[in-house]
Amino acid sequence: MSQFADLNALRTACLTLPAGSDAAVTAVRERQRTLTKPAGSLGRLEDMAAWLAKWQNRPMPRLDQVDILVFAGNHGITRLGVSAFPPSVTAQMVANFSAGGAAINQLARIADAKLSVIPLNLQTPTQDFTEAPAMPAAEFLQAVGTGYDAVPTGCDLLCLGEMGIGNTTAAAAVAAALLGGDGTRWAGRGTGIDDAGMIRKRNVIDAALQRHAACRGDPLLIAMALGGRELAAILGATLAARHLGVPVLLDGFVCTAAAAPLAKMVPGALDHTMLAHLSAEAGHRILADDLGLVPLLDFGMRLGEASAAALAVPLLRAAVACHTGMATFAEAAVDDRA
Amino acid sequence: MSQFADLNALRTACLTLPAGSDAAVTAVRERQRTLTKPAGSLGRLEDMAAWLAKWQNRPMPRLDQVDILVFAGNHGITRLGVSAFPPSVTAQMVANFSAGGAAINQLARIADAKLSVIPLNLQTPTQDFTEAPAMPAAEFLQAVGTGYDAVPTGCDLLCLGEMGIGNTTAAAAVAAALLGGDGTRWAGRGTGIDDAGMIRKRNVIDAALQRHAACRGDPLLIAMALGGRELAAILGATLAARHLGVPVLLDGFVCTAAAAPLAKMVPGALDHTMLAHLSAEAGHRILADDLGLVPLLDFGMRLGEASAAALAVPLLRAAVACHTGMATFAEAAVDDRA
Repeated sequence: MSQFADLNALRTACLTLPAGSDAAVTAVRERQRTLTKPAGSLGRLEDMAAWLAKWQNRPMPRLDQVDILVFAGNHGITRLGVSAFPPSVTAQMVANFSAGGAAINQLARIADAKLSVIPLNLQTPTQDFTEAPAMPAAEFLQAVGTGYDAVPTGCDLLCLGEMGIGNTTAAAAVAAALLGGDGTRWAGRGTGIDDAGMIRKRNVIDAALQRHAACRGDPLLIAMALGGRELAAILGATLAARHLGVPVLLDGFVCTAAAAPLAKMVPGALDHTMLAHLSAEAGHRILADDLGLVPLLDFGMRLGEASAAALAVPLLRAAVACHTGMATFAEAAVDDRA
Repeated sequence: MSQFADLNALRTACLTLPAGSDAAVTAVRERQRTLTKPAGSLGRLEDMAAWLAKWQNRPMPRLDQVDILVFAGNHGITRLGVSAFPPSVTAQMVANFSAGGAAINQLARIADAKLSVIPLNLQTPTQDFTEAPAMPAAEFLQAVGTGYDAVPTGCDLLCLGEMGIGNTTAAAAVAAALLGGDGTRWAGRGTGIDDAGMIRKRNVIDAALQRHAACRGDPLLIAMALGGRELAAILGATLAARHLGVPVLLDGFVCTAAAAPLAKMVPGALDHTMLAHLSAEAGHRILADDLGLVPLLDFGMRLGEASAAALAVPLLRAAVACHTGMATFAEAAVDDRA
């Protein structure tokens, strides 16, 4: 595996994060004061322009190249009946992504973004984490490294998402281990499981928390024991984006839970990310609040596959277009203030 | 004036609204059940597709032609010091729209929408409505008719907005007269007025409500006495869109207040509209809640000029793209449910 020889190498990469550019933020704020609009009247669009500039380290943010990465993984715990859909659907949906028939294909087109789908050893699910860690360390590091290496050169904005039948259970287990609480607090309906399935899902989370209690306090071990390959890859891609100066749009509950261990290791580790959407999945609000992530959208979506991240891209394009394209009061000969 | 010979003719047009197509909604819901995603997992995007189909009267909604209309007007009450900017800015911003330098120009480009700006007799402000009705009936009907006639042929979605120094005061006065409450309840900071200006603004609203108390209970008379030409034109365009089968995106506080008289005349008169954004302007939440409008976005914007309506267009494009472009479970050979 190219990026991380062992957990300590990964830990070091997580603990040595570059800061964004305060000078770029200052430049954005100075220009905003001159544009033909009442001060602050573009609201969050102005903050979005400043955020892009900060993490792109450019006084004028740009979105020439937007990339969407969707990581796919399979989960040993699906044999315990935690999903409304069979695990065969993960590979079938990857084929659907390739054929252009999924929601993310349509949304990537509207976002004018390049979609890449990265299946992670789908034929061999992770281990059932009620019995063993989801992944041995080498496998975890490989998945993190795959995500790390997947961030394209020249990327101005990275949208992250996932596909994996069973992965809202993994995400809930990771969130519970990081933040506290049990299956009842964190389990949601996922793709639409029934009441009996919800009970199974809660029990699986509780059993997993008990089995891996020794991981508590070590976010990377939690990601390894209770996560999944696609969650590990999202962690790796989020980390790479920080080191490469690429702002990130996080998608939904699974994506947020996948990146959360970074924030639990280093405060501010997710400052280069924005949350695209507040998922209908039960635990997402708790997790987003804890991480200080304020979603751009609240549309009751719960699809994953980077759908909400792609949906939010035009909002960022709008922020950049206003910031870079508007005339100043002087240029337009508009009177400033009475 | 072409459309409305007198107030009674306008009243008749307001009271004879076509319903949307329930058959189109049924067709959308049936197709949504077959698409490769868990049922309901695209959340509000699914409702948006159904809403477009209903008011376009088409089983497959489309957004081939999106039009943005920005109406501009000047207000007699600006002489009372209710705005942070001088009234000269209205015409200057219209020139800025023509030159492509305003926020709406950039946002229209991102929305792939055609922008039309319609100035309404800017050189002659409406009357100071603390002393007289803002407009005589003939002038009001002319502005409504201009808006009515401005809806382009072939339009699939109409974004409405305004420009008019002083018009948050007019909007607040209209909202207060329609819903109750005084200047303290309805006045907001507008373009950024200071505390002394806020007191003047509240007093202007209270004086106007007292002078035109006889209009209470007649939404059209309220729009005439307390509104403005650009608000009247928005009312006309919203009414025309309903008669022509065109869904509407309302922008912010002024735009919502302009359309509100329709809803107060006929329940459901704004069912063919969606609210793009919850404005930072104080009264907007009260007004939106009263009208049952749930905003798509909450970005703290307060610019007007159809900026938030344009910003929301790609969200509707995403809804249409998913609905029309996704594969079905059968087409993609994806297993449905366990």
